[in-house]
Amino acid sequence: MSSTKPPMRDALVAAAFQLFVERGYEQTTVDDIVALAGVGRRSFFRYFPSKEDVVFPDHERCLTDMTAFLAASHPGCEPLERVCEAARLVLRMYTDNPSFSVQRYRLTKQVPGLRAYELSVVWRYERAFAEYLRRRLSGRTDGTLQADVIAAAVVAAHNNALRSWLRSDGQGEAVERLDHALGYVQSSFGTSAAPTEDVVVLVSRRGAPLWRVVQEIESAIGRD
Amino acid sequence: MSSTKPPMRDALVAAAFQLFVERGYEQTTVDDIVALAGVGRRSFFRYFPSKEDVVFPDHERCLTDMTAFLAASHPGCEPLERVCEAARLVLRMYTDNPSFSVQRYRLTKQVPGLRAYELSVVWRYERAFAEYLRRRLSGRTDGTLQADVIAAAVVAAHNNALRSWLRSDGQGEAVERLDHALGYVQSSFGTSAAPTEDVVVLVSRRGAPLWRVVQEIESAIGRD
Repeated sequence: MSSTKPPMRDALVAAAFQLFVERGYEQTTVDDIVALAGVGRRSFFRYFPSKEDVVFPDHERCLTDMTAFLAASHPGCEPLERVCEAARLVLRMYTDNPSFSVQRYRLTKQVPGLRAYELSVVWRYERAFAEYLRRRLSGRTDGTLQADVIAAAVVAAHNNALRSWLRSDGQGEAVERLDHALGYVQSSFGTSAAPTEDVVVLVSRRGAPLWRVVQEIESAIGRD
Repeated sequence: MSSTKPPMRDALVAAAFQLFVERGYEQTTVDDIVALAGVGRRSFFRYFPSKEDVVFPDHERCLTDMTAFLAASHPGCEPLERVCEAARLVLRMYTDNPSFSVQRYRLTKQVPGLRAYELSVVWRYERAFAEYLRRRLSGRTDGTLQADVIAAAVVAAHNNALRSWLRSDGQGEAVERLDHALGYVQSSFGTSAAPTEDVVVLVSRRGAPLWRVVQEIESAIGRD
């Protein structure tokens, strides 16, 4: 993937993180970064609107990729499953470069300005999920509400899995943690995949006559 | 409630909003605000750390009240129901002053810096909900995951109801919209109140022999 990125951009990110770790984020200026990378100030601002942006160099591309992925969805696909797939794409941006992701996690926890920046990025992912779900659920009563709630739940599950992986210094299987977390969201919103094929769920009022309950089961499991 | 607030603080908020609406947020300085309110600069900064803070004058108090409300919960109360009650407290801050809330909503949509500020406030509410739920669900496998996901869902439901009320210029019943939205969250996470008393849910594999299914029902509904 790094082959598609200009080497100067990579050099600026590497120089910035070396200085952030050595001196701290606040104590590092754009001038320090360009001096270490051996380029001019204008080169920095060609790639990054501000010092904050160099901390999250891949989010714009990832947001673009993820939005395109959702836009290219087959109309027949299960919407929540598709959003979970999109969340896996976002996770991959972190797992592609574990040591960088762990360094940034530590930095972001220390610098309130970066924390605010990260919240605005997370909010954009959530909006992209919600907008896709709003389109797909537009035929439902409360489609907008459901879209917003499900999008927030997927983002929270993703962030829970991501943080637990980052806190363990990028050790262990991030994808498995995410799948587990998304499984909880899918079971909560009633659209989990395979198991429904095999299971009959019968809901009956306590007062229903037994013969009617048995009839319902027989019809559900296809006997007569 | 305004009786507990110093009048100078109220005067500063009123002057600030008058100017934000007349001139725009960016074009208004703290000097303009204090001049209109007839007080000195130091009075402004005694109440508000920055110009952004005057836009959200009640959030700190509301966060404090809401956190205290959760901390004072009876250990036997249903955790999700308690968090929904806390979300109703937050909504009340907006509905106590509809015209102010609608004005601020329009302002926040126009000014990216205020949008970022608001996201950081929303994140603090979500963390307060999640921390309470983490404590209450700490005995469960995946308690932390569930707490994070449910907190995000409650916040999304709250914000969906709030935005729909604000977009209708503060007309209609905000509390009813919120109750409806929270009802969706409660039904998704399986802890809605009364109905569970009355209903038997039976889950069986499709291949199970019918006599065993009947036996399970009989035992569940208390017949023999």
